[in-house]
Amino acid sequence: MIYQAPVKDMLFCMTELANIERIAALPGFEEAGIDTAQAVLEECARFTEGVVAPLNVAGDRQPSSWQDGNVTTTPGFADAYRQFGEGGWQGLQHPMDFGGQGLPMTIAAACSEMLNSANLSFALCAILTDGAIDALLTAGSRQLKEVYLPRMISGEWTGTMNLTEPQAGSDLALVRTRAEPQGDGTYKVFGTKIFITYGEHDMAENIVHLVLARLPGAPEGVKGISLFVVPKFLVDGTGALGDRNDVQCVSIEHKLGIKASPTAVLQFGDHGGAIGYLVGEENRGLEYMFVMMNAARYAVGLQGIAVAERACQLAAAYAKERVQSRPVDGSLPGAAPIIHHPDVQRMLLTMRAQTEGCRALAMAAAAACDAAHAHPEAEVRRREQAVFEFLVPLVKGYATEMSLEVTSLGVQVHGGMGFIEETGAAQHYRDARILTIYEGTTAIQANDFIGRKTVRDGGTVARAFAQEIAAVEAELRQRRSEAAQAMALRLAVAREAFLEVLDWVLANVKSDPNAVFAGSVPYLLLAGNLAAGWQMGRALLAAEDRLEAGGDIDFMRRKVLVARFYADHILTRVPGLRDSIVAGSEAISEMSLEAF
Amino acid sequence: MIYQAPVKDMLFCMTELANIERIAALPGFEEAGIDTAQAVLEECARFTEGVVAPLNVAGDRQPSSWQDGNVTTTPGFADAYRQFGEGGWQGLQHPMDFGGQGLPMTIAAACSEMLNSANLSFALCAILTDGAIDALLTAGSRQLKEVYLPRMISGEWTGTMNLTEPQAGSDLALVRTRAEPQGDGTYKVFGTKIFITYGEHDMAENIVHLVLARLPGAPEGVKGISLFVVPKFLVDGTGALGDRNDVQCVSIEHKLGIKASPTAVLQFGDHGGAIGYLVGEENRGLEYMFVMMNAARYAVGLQGIAVAERACQLAAAYAKERVQSRPVDGSLPGAAPIIHHPDVQRMLLTMRAQTEGCRALAMAAAAACDAAHAHPEAEVRRREQAVFEFLVPLVKGYATEMSLEVTSLGVQVHGGMGFIEETGAAQHYRDARILTIYEGTTAIQANDFIGRKTVRDGGTVARAFAQEIAAVEAELRQRRSEAAQAMALRLAVAREAFLEVLDWVLANVKSDPNAVFAGSVPYLLLAGNLAAGWQMGRALLAAEDRLEAGGDIDFMRRKVLVARFYADHILTRVPGLRDSIVAGSEAISEMSLEAF
Repeated sequence: MIYQAPVKDMLFCMTELANIERIAALPGFEEAGIDTAQAVLEECARFTEGVVAPLNVAGDRQPSSWQDGNVTTTPGFADAYRQFGEGGWQGLQHPMDFGGQGLPMTIAAACSEMLNSANLSFALCAILTDGAIDALLTAGSRQLKEVYLPRMISGEWTGTMNLTEPQAGSDLALVRTRAEPQGDGTYKVFGTKIFITYGEHDMAENIVHLVLARLPGAPEGVKGISLFVVPKFLVDGTGALGDRNDVQCVSIEHKLGIKASPTAVLQFGDHGGAIGYLVGEENRGLEYMFVMMNAARYAVGLQGIAVAERACQLAAAYAKERVQSRPVDGSLPGAAPIIHHPDVQRMLLTMRAQTEGCRALAMAAAAACDAAHAHPEAEVRRREQAVFEFLVPLVKGYATEMSLEVTSLGVQVHGGMGFIEETGAAQHYRDARILTIYEGTTAIQANDFIGRKTVRDGGTVARAFAQEIAAVEAELRQRRSEAAQAMALRLAVAREAFLEVLDWVLANVKSDPNAVFAGSVPYLLLAGNLAAGWQMGRALLAAEDRLEAGGDIDFMRRKVLVARFYADHILTRVPGLRDSIVAGSEAISEMSLEAF
Repeated sequence: MIYQAPVKDMLFCMTELANIERIAALPGFEEAGIDTAQAVLEECARFTEGVVAPLNVAGDRQPSSWQDGNVTTTPGFADAYRQFGEGGWQGLQHPMDFGGQGLPMTIAAACSEMLNSANLSFALCAILTDGAIDALLTAGSRQLKEVYLPRMISGEWTGTMNLTEPQAGSDLALVRTRAEPQGDGTYKVFGTKIFITYGEHDMAENIVHLVLARLPGAPEGVKGISLFVVPKFLVDGTGALGDRNDVQCVSIEHKLGIKASPTAVLQFGDHGGAIGYLVGEENRGLEYMFVMMNAARYAVGLQGIAVAERACQLAAAYAKERVQSRPVDGSLPGAAPIIHHPDVQRMLLTMRAQTEGCRALAMAAAAACDAAHAHPEAEVRRREQAVFEFLVPLVKGYATEMSLEVTSLGVQVHGGMGFIEETGAAQHYRDARILTIYEGTTAIQANDFIGRKTVRDGGTVARAFAQEIAAVEAELRQRRSEAAQAMALRLAVAREAFLEVLDWVLANVKSDPNAVFAGSVPYLLLAGNLAAGWQMGRALLAAEDRLEAGGDIDFMRRKVLVARFYADHILTRVPGLRDSIVAGSEAISEMSLEAF
């Protein structure tokens, strides 16, 4: 077994937490009930398990390579990407108008998790293409949409996002790439972009670069940045390919992980100027990026869940095989598979609880996103959008930080073998390490979570979030089981800690921003931990209901235990985070910069 | 700046925490006062910074390689190792009788930290040689000592520890390598050993393998294992080298990190039998290994501190250089070095506080070790030995787990550049990952900490440890500073949590060992966190005293702040660990093995 898609857990999340039948009642999603979901997930499982997952190790050992401006991807990648496009997977959540399937994010997210579990490097090409599609859908002219979108949605062409420059990483105000209008409606683009994922490769016949650049005389800072399409090969009005554009891949990076995905340095305009097309209006590039940022950040959160799931499976399989030492309770006469040892069980359950908690959270967020897009009532759309935007930095920030812990435990479960590359656990550990960095570091997510998602509305959405949790606690308290009681207790303590921090943030953010932002990442981790715990609380209630009804006993019992483990082992970290946020800023602010 | 040895912090730990003048009053250590310490540390800083540290990156990019049974190490390693031996560094803490310097562990530990910061892979050869020297000192015959020790202490020959076999990792009861007596006092050894660090290399003229093997008719399990010397080249009574012995390096591993250090598979006796010499008595091999185990585990704990220190330095330097984004408090008009951002400060201080806390703990443990060896009164020796043995699993277990967090933060501070191998942060992240695994995984340390160090004496040493902390709290409470008050509060809460867990462990370890051992690693992390916090509390008191006296204001102020940061950000994790230990076993024990 290389990878087994957790279809059952995904369907449980959809029915019990994401309320998929409610989504299927929304206009446009009439076909997207649980039967469709199950059929799509099972087909996706077959494809990702059978075609994509087997390429994961090869991608690490024989990564993308660069020569004379061309990038050769790992053998097998191009063929698998062709199958990916032909199977309609790139278009899953995109509009039917341009050849997509028009499915809700709730279903597409599950498929994206599978693709990423199978092969994080491979999936990146699809994620970046999704981002470019979203950018064109958001702001592209009708002509740009008609020429580019069908070919991107079919997987024939791929997309890239060109934001970063050597001096401009998190801080896009520093972007220097420039675009000069040519008088014929086109532009010539000049500049250097770095860290461009799949910026050059041999898996598709064209690459559609979305590029942030400044027009002559544009304002300084982020308000003077525009967005351009710069195709690798020029395209005529019918979509036929023409000459090579003036964009060159001058090198790719030697990275810690996700080695199969080429990370390119792109040089625009060294030979006269790369021809580009303005997307939307001048100087609104960053705004367009922000519209799609939520989707891209959410997708990276899914990557965290995905690599964690894969690490869980690898570690559990090893723990059942590897025989070492007698059980501590003397229950067996000699050495036993290490899964008998309580600490191995603790590690595996930590991995499981964190992964399933974040999956549940991601599914709940996807449901909010679907309602925000498709609900007929504007007020509901607005409310659901606010919930989705509140949850996105938690899915991105918390699920990726979680993936660092889970993949590290995955190495640990393997003991010495975990440090040997052949075992595979180390690859997950290396691959995961980028997830807390790209699409905005955890600190950037935390700034967003404090600034836009907590403070801007005076804590309204944050308090509503806490109230939803209180309601789950009330339900849990009415149950007889120890598991429900434990969950109710831990959720209550964590929720109260969250509210204390919330009050402190709101009270101090203006008068002492340094103190508040020194606690930004712990605040995000606290809220993410609580949000996943909230969903595990709901999962526990649902699983107990299903047990009562006599259904699927093994799965539901297991879910109750994983949820209880989450309560006692993961939620218990929350009060410590509160203490370090509320009391911990002075040791930071009093330190002189020289003393670091 | 590649690496700058933290000589000042080490000397502070020695004078204020390890009480080096008390050590210098012990018989045999008369020369080892603070002046000697300072001279040795400064010389060691010069050597490690100038000769060893520059080879660290080369070791990663051009690691040891194997061909036809021979291992070629990274260019420069052999020459540096020759200088290491000639400088007397291998012999620092070994007896003068065999050519060593006879210095206390307190000084040798600081030098070992430097060597490991400079180059973890390089330092491993010295650590393993130390282990082999200790084994021979413990149990070797006079002849073995006279022939082998002077050449190992001079660095001419190196040593290895051959414990692990494919089926026998943590569980040495499963060792199958066998030794057959030849009637002439020698033995022939047959078997396969894996994960043998520096099991083959080109840095010394001979390699002295210490090998665990079974004699014919020996008892099953750990009581039937004997220890043998098996040299790579046979040696006559004068130490002159003879024929190649029948031990072959059949391959080396492809590892996640510490790539320059060859990890060998050794085949003993494929061509008639490898000639070996019994060390000590038959069937007492494991006992001898345990005698030296404390030193070896302590040394790996130092490796954690060492790689964390290096990661701290790299991250702080980058944070002072990299310009990105305007400070959140608006204190500067434009983008600033990222060290201005509160979250970067939080990350750097987390790294610093963890590293300095563990260094302080390791120094205090070394002082106990020195007193345990050299104190004239047997009762003091016994008591100090018990303290040292209590602290060793904390130094090993906690400082190495800490190094995973610190090296990961080191990557994070670098943002996208952290994921690019050229930056260097990723190497520390990869290198550190072995530290929680070899010389006994964290779970093995935790079992030792619960079984031998906590339960066996009914919690006596553990309670004495808590009392020492209470005394520090009392002193802190008498200070006026907010920092001292914060530290007193957090230490008290953490100490009480420790005592709760201790009572729970003692009450349940016999009736419900699975529950107790499910909490073993959190218990070790709790105690390690508290132990380092205890030393940071002492450091805070000492630094305030020195400030009062007007000495070294910048250093002492900084130390107070780092200690306060430790209190508010690291010690605050302790109560959550208590909760998950005391309440968290049921979700683990109720899970069926199939459900994982």
